[in-house]
Amino acid sequence: MKKKIKKVNAAILIIGNEILSGRTQDKNIAFLSNWLNAKCGIGVNEVRIIPDVEKKIIENILNLSKSFNYVFTTGGIGPTHDDITAQSISKAFKVKYEYHKEAYKILEDYYGKKKFNDGRKKMAKMPKGAKLIYNPASAAPGFITKNVLSLPGVPSILNSMIENCKRYLTKGSKIHSKTINLYTVESNISKKLGLIQKKYKKYVDIGSYPFFRLGKIGVSIVTRSNSILKLKAVNKELIKLVKLKKIQILKIK
Amino acid sequence: MKKKIKKVNAAILIIGNEILSGRTQDKNIAFLSNWLNAKCGIGVNEVRIIPDVEKKIIENILNLSKSFNYVFTTGGIGPTHDDITAQSISKAFKVKYEYHKEAYKILEDYYGKKKFNDGRKKMAKMPKGAKLIYNPASAAPGFITKNVLSLPGVPSILNSMIENCKRYLTKGSKIHSKTINLYTVESNISKKLGLIQKKYKKYVDIGSYPFFRLGKIGVSIVTRSNSILKLKAVNKELIKLVKLKKIQILKIK
Repeated sequence: MKKKIKKVNAAILIIGNEILSGRTQDKNIAFLSNWLNAKCGIGVNEVRIIPDVEKKIIENILNLSKSFNYVFTTGGIGPTHDDITAQSISKAFKVKYEYHKEAYKILEDYYGKKKFNDGRKKMAKMPKGAKLIYNPASAAPGFITKNVLSLPGVPSILNSMIENCKRYLTKGSKIHSKTINLYTVESNISKKLGLIQKKYKKYVDIGSYPFFRLGKIGVSIVTRSNSILKLKAVNKELIKLVKLKKIQILKIK
Repeated sequence: MKKKIKKVNAAILIIGNEILSGRTQDKNIAFLSNWLNAKCGIGVNEVRIIPDVEKKIIENILNLSKSFNYVFTTGGIGPTHDDITAQSISKAFKVKYEYHKEAYKILEDYYGKKKFNDGRKKMAKMPKGAKLIYNPASAAPGFITKNVLSLPGVPSILNSMIENCKRYLTKGSKIHSKTINLYTVESNISKKLGLIQKKYKKYVDIGSYPFFRLGKIGVSIVTRSNSILKLKAVNKELIKLVKLKKIQILKIK
């Protein structure tokens, strides 16, 4: 019996002037994408990076949460004035922005009553009805509101929390992938590659990416599919093409 | 006489499945943003990363080119089937997708008539009326269509072309920036920081970013403004706050 393929997708919304200004090199996109792919069979289909501006956050939350199964936000859940993710999501979904009892308790226990100041208390305020994403690194929890999962921007903290997102996610079919690295130039294979892509359009994505290594020019052919059988069929045709053109294969993985 | 402040903004549209899948770590966003800031006084206000899908490219080109002074696209201008930026922009702006005479000549000279195959010829096809962005690294030019500048995805090639974008850009007022690195935690200064931001809301953006260095926790306070005077005023208040709280300053730059 054929297994039914279940496609689940996500968008990432990076909230942060520091990424937009180029001051900070983003590391969360590749991490989230790889994790979602490998661990949940969820494909990231769009990423947006926007400033810490309430109107922009609201617009993008509404738009992306309608268009994708899940939205991951990163950044803007700390104690300072520029951390406005939680109140903006509350406004977007028209729910109260209020203390989350469990989050309040977690933070109060972590800092101690005396050191639990206003800034720290702010990190316990969330959209009403939000569920917590626990934070083993620095206590302040992330949260999920409808299909929107809100995580911090600091990569090491985000990474520590990622396994705690799993319980909220419906898994999709695994996305299989194969890469063939060749010593050739793209234009040498582009025509035939296009024909193979056309033939398998419905099932397999074929990407072609030039690279430079040890002074030589090469091309990575990356194939991705939910169907391991179709992926194998495409790669068989690719190997045939490569042999026909007498192209040196550098690596298959 | 007061110099009038001229704000010019841009969006970046990264076209590429390889970035979305997490296979490739993007390096173009930070590079473009820093260059536009430093060399042109242009602030990047939004970034989107989308797949190699015509409909998505058209939607985003139309939306972003209306909302921002400039749009920079990266990726999708090579010789393979997944390089569909030029034809998608043609469709978005309802202009013909055709050989650009000068681009054709440049590529024919570069490869030589015999080796100028269909894949390579494809790189000379552009939206009608596009102007060229010369490519000193690998010949294939980028192009500008209305306010949309299209560059390749390979960082080393993109970097080599960036100075050739300048002639097409109207400069904005320089965006000045100052960073104060402190050994403290965000919640220790968050309240007062919020008040300072409120006071200078119209002129200065204040960002607060936690960091971990040599086992110590710190905060970077980043201030950005078109007005050097307002920036100085804010930083004077910040230093006053830091001294009042007896916080150790790690670095000011």
